[in-house]
Amino acid sequence: MRRVLIRIAYDGSAYHGFARLDAVDTVAGRIETALCDLCGESVELIGGSRTDAGVHAKDNVAVFDVPDSRQIPAQKIPGALNVRLPDDIRINSGIEVPADFHPRHCDTVKTYEYKILNSPLQDPLRRNYTRWVRHELDASAMDEAARYLKGEHDFTSFCNVHAQSNTRIRTIYDASVNKHGDELMIRVSGNGFLYNMVRIIAGTLIETGEGKRKPADIKDIIEAKDRGAAGITAPPQGLCLMEYRFVNEEY
Amino acid sequence: MRRVLIRIAYDGSAYHGFARLDAVDTVAGRIETALCDLCGESVELIGGSRTDAGVHAKDNVAVFDVPDSRQIPAQKIPGALNVRLPDDIRINSGIEVPADFHPRHCDTVKTYEYKILNSPLQDPLRRNYTRWVRHELDASAMDEAARYLKGEHDFTSFCNVHAQSNTRIRTIYDASVNKHGDELMIRVSGNGFLYNMVRIIAGTLIETGEGKRKPADIKDIIEAKDRGAAGITAPPQGLCLMEYRFVNEEY
Repeated sequence: MRRVLIRIAYDGSAYHGFARLDAVDTVAGRIETALCDLCGESVELIGGSRTDAGVHAKDNVAVFDVPDSRQIPAQKIPGALNVRLPDDIRINSGIEVPADFHPRHCDTVKTYEYKILNSPLQDPLRRNYTRWVRHELDASAMDEAARYLKGEHDFTSFCNVHAQSNTRIRTIYDASVNKHGDELMIRVSGNGFLYNMVRIIAGTLIETGEGKRKPADIKDIIEAKDRGAAGITAPPQGLCLMEYRFVNEEY
Repeated sequence: MRRVLIRIAYDGSAYHGFARLDAVDTVAGRIETALCDLCGESVELIGGSRTDAGVHAKDNVAVFDVPDSRQIPAQKIPGALNVRLPDDIRINSGIEVPADFHPRHCDTVKTYEYKILNSPLQDPLRRNYTRWVRHELDASAMDEAARYLKGEHDFTSFCNVHAQSNTRIRTIYDASVNKHGDELMIRVSGNGFLYNMVRIIAGTLIETGEGKRKPADIKDIIEAKDRGAAGITAPPQGLCLMEYRFVNEEY
């Protein structure tokens, strides 16, 4: 058995999220089907981020074990999988890793972007990749608010109440909001994110941009440790996992 | 009867082009169905640009006649149609125009963009909106080539051989190629474009960017008046109609 790490980009619009679920179409399910076809036996995928339905990724990761019966080199696996996958899922790289390597047991820096189309008019070409907000948002208030998220905090307020994590303490290394033309980009990097955390951050920052909250309110929201203190969960289509980086490994 | 001009944005990925065709799904067909539902009788749409299957628009136009039985003001029509349309088609404005106004019988400036993703890796999120070219293109050679297209010319070389236009003389007011990050943007404005003309321009410019043609070759290709002299027809998904402007009218 050889363990292989792949990096995966996908348009999540058509899928019920990354993680495999029986009876529904998922990104991991599609990759496992392709792997089964390639390897001639069933292969289990261990994923990095379990992105929600409708959420995208430019750089998610997963590992799997190639059976000894299949002699394909790791770097040939992306091409071999891509011809077996729909064009909304692309495998960008493949590399052999130690047999005990597990992407969720490593120190990581994950970077997410949440994109807002801030325009009086909707744009059908960006409907699956942005959250449309008609009225002008105050991007500098949102950026100021985002900075209060930085550091190690208990993010219970920014976490779906059904989350099953042992601890709700996470470290956010960077958080910012920038305007590019008619788009606002929320960008957050951290060592991990709780269930719905980036979408609740986005919903709360949008309310700040609308003037319903002040930037410094973020401090009080974090301290409240109460989901009810934060804003709505922004819809999934604006969210994209941009980078899944391992701190102590080169791959 | 009142004649109304609408401006239309759409993601063309799911449609067999703009113009209504029996038995297949088209943008105009969808709008006529919505109009029929709104007006309680069948309404014929007269479109501006007949974009191909898979081609997008941020600003196409069409007119239709509202039956006297339906008292809806023109500016309320976008909202009334949008609730009856799928979310990949949006009506952005509605305005009353003279009863004999015809969008294809006016002097116009149409602007198209053709987007190329020039990157070693494919991007599933942009698969429907860009032409992917893996190897680095020479954007400045492409820009230089584009400039030879400007002016009034017989564009037979850049026209599908099945085109039915009376004349193949068109005026291109501006043509350029710019690089933004990993995207190249071909932008052309003119008084009209022949069948497949922008896609053949894009295909020829891509071959220039690959070094297969020199920028000044464009002059010879135009003079040849022979479709065989130009490059391939680039695929539809990179193309978007950005603006349909009437020269002598305010709408």
